[in-house]
Amino acid sequence: MANAIPEALQRLINNFSALPGVGEKTATRYALYTLRSNENFALEFSKSLKELHEKIKLCSVCMTYSQDDPCPICSNIQRDSSVLCVVEDPSDLLAIEDANTFKGLYHVLHGAISLMDKITPENLKLNELERRLDSGSVKEVIIATSSTRAGETTAHYIFDILKDKGVKITRIGYGIPMGMDIKYADRATLSKSLGARQEFQL
Amino acid sequence: MANAIPEALQRLINNFSALPGVGEKTATRYALYTLRSNENFALEFSKSLKELHEKIKLCSVCMTYSQDDPCPICSNIQRDSSVLCVVEDPSDLLAIEDANTFKGLYHVLHGAISLMDKITPENLKLNELERRLDSGSVKEVIIATSSTRAGETTAHYIFDILKDKGVKITRIGYGIPMGMDIKYADRATLSKSLGARQEFQL
Repeated sequence: MANAIPEALQRLINNFSALPGVGEKTATRYALYTLRSNENFALEFSKSLKELHEKIKLCSVCMTYSQDDPCPICSNIQRDSSVLCVVEDPSDLLAIEDANTFKGLYHVLHGAISLMDKITPENLKLNELERRLDSGSVKEVIIATSSTRAGETTAHYIFDILKDKGVKITRIGYGIPMGMDIKYADRATLSKSLGARQEFQL
Repeated sequence: MANAIPEALQRLINNFSALPGVGEKTATRYALYTLRSNENFALEFSKSLKELHEKIKLCSVCMTYSQDDPCPICSNIQRDSSVLCVVEDPSDLLAIEDANTFKGLYHVLHGAISLMDKITPENLKLNELERRLDSGSVKEVIIATSSTRAGETTAHYIFDILKDKGVKITRIGYGIPMGMDIKYADRATLSKSLGARQEFQL
């Protein structure tokens, strides 16, 4: 086995293995697929990886990944700049954009406070968030962190630093997901959902 | 959503999506992980992909992927060159090498005959296999194709073209996998395994 895999192939297998959730077997499958495919596939793929960090930077306003600065969302004058939705990661922003319902702007923290993972408030884009409120144009901050321990900690921390800034602070609703049968919901979600009950509206 | 994903990121997502079994969501996860990681990760990954086809060619003897020609297996004088194990793909060769029990040489066909997938005998490395038998040093050819319809068709085809060459032609054993409970085996495997019964040995 030792020398059955050529070194150049083994290196690519190692690269694929570093991706989240990819084990040795899957990485080998990806690498052999790439080798079996037309060379252009590998070359295009190589080019995308080479240019990734070159081309994509953080938007200096909302801190999401972008090729332009400010990003297309921040520079879209049709969006409501009085509402900021604070998310942990660029992927959360993409998920909310995908739902196609939010018309305000975003602020990306790049993580959540977690002592276990050694992520402190200083590691997040919180100074940048505070500075955005100085202009006075922001009227509401929607905290859309995850309903995990780190997300909760981060939400409370943000509330603390913003509560005297004269902006409305809200949180997205947590509860039973749409389409989910109540009997399959876990206890934490059920009690959150009962606590978040609202008056019935037709 | 349309412009929420920067173009350079979208291109990388498309590259990852082309890998077997990778959907849009997984590809996005891989791409964001790469973007979040140190730039060196993307650059090393890019380099591996760029060099893949440059460095790896087919061994001119056994047709497997190799950086050297002949490959380390074919040029290993400790191996028994009188036995050839014929496999469909380089990954089959790796699996057999991994079992660390076979000491002969290989021949890689790069596919199996399948009219549905438009793979005919001409697409496989069959001429190269016949030519290897001309030297007269090969005494046995072990056919180790998969137990799929394409693998069976290929096995029969090889038997036909080699049967008058004066070499022993064998097939690997098919049956119940080691550690498998008989009640979970499918009918085809069970009948194959009964047909392949051997005298009991202590």
